[in-house]
Amino acid sequence: MADVQLDGLTSDPVTMGWMVGAPPPPDRRILGARADHMRFPMIRWSYSNMRSFCPTVRIAASGKGTPFPRALRDDLGAVRFTPLGSQGEISFDDALLAAFTDGILVLHKGEVVFERWFGVTGPETRHIAFSVTKSFVGTLVQMLVGEGRIDLAARVDSVIPELARSGFGSATIGQVLDMTTALDFSEEYGNPNSGIGAYSAALGLTPRPASYTGPHNLWDYLTTVPGAGTHGERFVYRTPNTDVLAWIITRIEGKPFAEVLSERLWQPLGMLGDADLIVDEAGAPFAGGGLNLRLEDLARFGEALRLGGLGVIPESDVDRIWRGGDPERFHKDAYPLLGGWSYGSQWWHAGDNHGCFSARGIHGQTLWVDPASEMVIARFASHPTAANGANDPHSLPAWRALAEALKA
Amino acid sequence: MADVQLDGLTSDPVTMGWMVGAPPPPDRRILGARADHMRFPMIRWSYSNMRSFCPTVRIAASGKGTPFPRALRDDLGAVRFTPLGSQGEISFDDALLAAFTDGILVLHKGEVVFERWFGVTGPETRHIAFSVTKSFVGTLVQMLVGEGRIDLAARVDSVIPELARSGFGSATIGQVLDMTTALDFSEEYGNPNSGIGAYSAALGLTPRPASYTGPHNLWDYLTTVPGAGTHGERFVYRTPNTDVLAWIITRIEGKPFAEVLSERLWQPLGMLGDADLIVDEAGAPFAGGGLNLRLEDLARFGEALRLGGLGVIPESDVDRIWRGGDPERFHKDAYPLLGGWSYGSQWWHAGDNHGCFSARGIHGQTLWVDPASEMVIARFASHPTAANGANDPHSLPAWRALAEALKA
Repeated sequence: MADVQLDGLTSDPVTMGWMVGAPPPPDRRILGARADHMRFPMIRWSYSNMRSFCPTVRIAASGKGTPFPRALRDDLGAVRFTPLGSQGEISFDDALLAAFTDGILVLHKGEVVFERWFGVTGPETRHIAFSVTKSFVGTLVQMLVGEGRIDLAARVDSVIPELARSGFGSATIGQVLDMTTALDFSEEYGNPNSGIGAYSAALGLTPRPASYTGPHNLWDYLTTVPGAGTHGERFVYRTPNTDVLAWIITRIEGKPFAEVLSERLWQPLGMLGDADLIVDEAGAPFAGGGLNLRLEDLARFGEALRLGGLGVIPESDVDRIWRGGDPERFHKDAYPLLGGWSYGSQWWHAGDNHGCFSARGIHGQTLWVDPASEMVIARFASHPTAANGANDPHSLPAWRALAEALKA
Repeated sequence: MADVQLDGLTSDPVTMGWMVGAPPPPDRRILGARADHMRFPMIRWSYSNMRSFCPTVRIAASGKGTPFPRALRDDLGAVRFTPLGSQGEISFDDALLAAFTDGILVLHKGEVVFERWFGVTGPETRHIAFSVTKSFVGTLVQMLVGEGRIDLAARVDSVIPELARSGFGSATIGQVLDMTTALDFSEEYGNPNSGIGAYSAALGLTPRPASYTGPHNLWDYLTTVPGAGTHGERFVYRTPNTDVLAWIITRIEGKPFAEVLSERLWQPLGMLGDADLIVDEAGAPFAGGGLNLRLEDLARFGEALRLGGLGVIPESDVDRIWRGGDPERFHKDAYPLLGGWSYGSQWWHAGDNHGCFSARGIHGQTLWVDPASEMVIARFASHPTAANGANDPHSLPAWRALAEALKA
């Protein structure tokens, strides 16, 4: 099944016929018990249908949201650019296929100027955002910082005593927020013995081996992550930092994370639709990557940040998000394509002359904010490769080329 | 945990503190892996949160629904009546506790005259409707009959050849609709070796034993149900009949059941919110009992039927639903409290002088339509006993007493 020869076009989930029919033919079923929903090419269907594989809770919208106005510019599909490390130009339309795009929206000055849907993904689809989820969490943290309810200089174990003996306990909340914690944890996808492998087993997103004896939920798991080294020295991307942040938010707010996200962002921002948040068997939110939302609602989040928070996120909090992290602390070896970038407040910052910042999730999930160009791009994808290094060569220069085209 | 001494008040899920905290205390966790979500008193929480235990799909609302007007009459809580088999009177308010009510709405002439919420259940909660789901399915069948796309006299296997060798194959669709099929299947809850036990194992609503070798989805399961006797002779309530109907609807419409339900009822009736439909691992809908919806949307369905379908369900189809089944074929032994009743089109008919008909689900889920009194009652509950015989003594006379009170 995992035919790596399939490209963005031939892996189209409608063409492949996943889960069509009652019952679907056996070779066209996507079985969670086999972890099919996390394997290419089945992910081209499953990432748009995660609630049918995982326990979820509802992030309630207000029901009063209105769509962005449309001012579509179909010429944008023909915009040409040179992918990183390539010789020849390709068109933006071709790049969409190269990125295994499921849906993309480009906002310019608050209007949708470009919109494309592929496969089984459409405007109402709740597509998994993976680590784009983290940027929602980081924004909530900054809002609580602004209210004086979170002190970024405080130690994690002052809020979550359960983490005292873990590697997180001695870190400051600010270090967790910027992922400069020093932990014995590797974010190596596909290796069940890596940190992220153990994290995934605790979360239960795919079936656990029968011999599994580890933690059965994220809260218990987080208490087991050992420290290694000195906090604050360098940024190393490690997903469970975000789950610690969600735990802190939940403890401080005294209510489930899903409710906080609904009350503080989903409802006041006028999101168009409820979102689905994956939870584990104890009810812990998969804050590191479990948000499933409408693409236009993702764009709305970016637009709100571009415009200073729209009165929902206080401007001083948005300022701290815009500021980014310390490029000197960036994990340069891990991201050869991201020279000059930094990571701060659970956001990625390009460090370019447009002030661009981004939320990024595996397999190509993207929210790209280009303040100088008054442009926001939201993209869902199901690229065969988890790491965004596989997508960036086609994506980062495309965003810049779009910005240039929109000047015209 | 399963303290049968708990009553409607002392089993309140807020008081008991289920799933509160991050993490919830071990003795206050409801674990799907332990099947806690299907056991009293945990069901007082879980029946309002089923999507966090089960895979689900979305039944999309239009987003344009408006609530019923409120004309609350708080005197109704003091209405007194005599429960069946009892000597003394109780008040309607007391009866709500006796029924382990989670939420109740009473509509009179299209206005909400009574509304109560308990525990963790509120207006936005999607509470499991259990077999109330069946009446949505039966209504869809009658709509397709009205369009000439389903022939109730046709054999099941003429539409679903996969069922040819099962007990359903030789039945007519009309016999399935009225549950007069003759099957080797017992609806004996709590017995894993009963028909409903095997059905549940295939569905996977609770964990399967490690030794389980049976079917892993409802479609495969339905092909295994044997026949026993002659179809059409008498009504015997057997849940998988409804899953056969959903299979027929899906086959005829050529789209997933959830989409049919959304397009034909949820959107045109102006339901207030999306609903959650439980699916099994192959994507088969739990049509026999897996709908989770807002209580007011359940009331809306009843009101639409009371008013002749509101142009959404053609009046001639509503007429056939109102007509009910054949009381002579009713399973009198099984329902000593339901003298004179009948079952038709997946609806229960009281056969009384008000023309009352009802959708009924285990643990107290109810939609009660009293045409003569222009009254509709929707109730969610989490009674410790599955069978509605436990609820009926407090409920049936209460509905009648309310109807009398509303005349005044």
